[in-house]
Amino acid sequence: MIFHQFFEKESSTYTYLLACEDTREAVLIDPVVSEIEHYAQLLAVKNLTLAYSLDTHVHADHVTAANQLREKFGCKTVLHRNSGVACGDIFITDKSAIRIGDILVEARYTPGHTNACTSYVVEGMVFTGDALLIDGCGRTDFQEGNAATLYDSIHQQIFSLPDETIVYPGHDYNGGLSSTVGQERLHNARLGNGRSKQEFIDIMQKLNLPYPKKIDIALPANKACGK
Amino acid sequence: MIFHQFFEKESSTYTYLLACEDTREAVLIDPVVSEIEHYAQLLAVKNLTLAYSLDTHVHADHVTAANQLREKFGCKTVLHRNSGVACGDIFITDKSAIRIGDILVEARYTPGHTNACTSYVVEGMVFTGDALLIDGCGRTDFQEGNAATLYDSIHQQIFSLPDETIVYPGHDYNGGLSSTVGQERLHNARLGNGRSKQEFIDIMQKLNLPYPKKIDIALPANKACGK
Repeated sequence: MIFHQFFEKESSTYTYLLACEDTREAVLIDPVVSEIEHYAQLLAVKNLTLAYSLDTHVHADHVTAANQLREKFGCKTVLHRNSGVACGDIFITDKSAIRIGDILVEARYTPGHTNACTSYVVEGMVFTGDALLIDGCGRTDFQEGNAATLYDSIHQQIFSLPDETIVYPGHDYNGGLSSTVGQERLHNARLGNGRSKQEFIDIMQKLNLPYPKKIDIALPANKACGK
Repeated sequence: MIFHQFFEKESSTYTYLLACEDTREAVLIDPVVSEIEHYAQLLAVKNLTLAYSLDTHVHADHVTAANQLREKFGCKTVLHRNSGVACGDIFITDKSAIRIGDILVEARYTPGHTNACTSYVVEGMVFTGDALLIDGCGRTDFQEGNAATLYDSIHQQIFSLPDETIVYPGHDYNGGLSSTVGQERLHNARLGNGRSKQEFIDIMQKLNLPYPKKIDIALPANKACGK
């Protein structure tokens, strides 16, 4: 499998490219509109065809490249059915999957940060978007966020994966690139060490986070696939 | 919306083409491999691009055109996740949806005839495959069929649609082209007139149907997308 992790500095967003070595079909997970030239370059250098762009959720902190990638490469825009983004092409639900060559990209519905969050499981890796982050998790105080729901999503859909599964998050603000399910299950500051749901809810309620800087630009743009 | 109903005589199969008048994108539901030239002709005449081929289930009575359509038109092959057909491109689950232009094709999981049956709801129409037929239903005595499951699927996922919804079945053996939800809910010989689940199970158990003629050819072929 061809794998590449991209980083967008302003919003500390990770974007992932996965591709089949045989068929040269590729997907991008959480592409950022400002970074399109980087994606185009890698696709060209590696001789890949972009078949799908996947968003793990409707982002509040950066604008998706979905629409521009569709216009440029003819790929399909994939989102969860609950996203309320009418311009998507394929609206997945829990356990839906997309195949590129011999790679299966499996959706697991992981709401809580938003009501349309999806993690993608691919051959020993899980792309968690803003559900589970390294030593943290997505905030739950806007976009229909709910701490109890996020706790259940992470426990049932992510911590149920084998401990050695590599966790690739949607963001990291401290230079971390990846983690593992075992590491987060045991040591995540908010969820690790067998923390109860009530303890988690209390932690999330006391975070007192500032109003997200780009939400008023990012949300309307992402509801239109980044147009 | 552009709509066309095709008929394949040998297996009495209905295939449906739906397309957006603006974007000219099209889907085919349950295409049959012997009929590809008819589909190609209509696509060309109407200046349409085939974006997806959808199968309501893994058919036992005819071979899908999915793979040949993919090779000819570059469309994506869509099936339910439970189908066990590894060569599909997009594996949907209940409430997944696919958009072509301004048309939303919504999946409703309707198992019972097989464990991977899906009906598709599109603007006042429902394409029921072999779950609900005109004045009948799909058999439940092979391919993980189950009469109780089929009863629940039809009641919860199809009879819950508005009465005026047009029912387009996967087959008809008597020249019927379509029905309505109201007609079938009230008058279907096996399910109408408030028949109980136990009555339905008894009817299905007593059908005593012959071994399906083409199942030994069709099933392995369809597990390989009709290759």
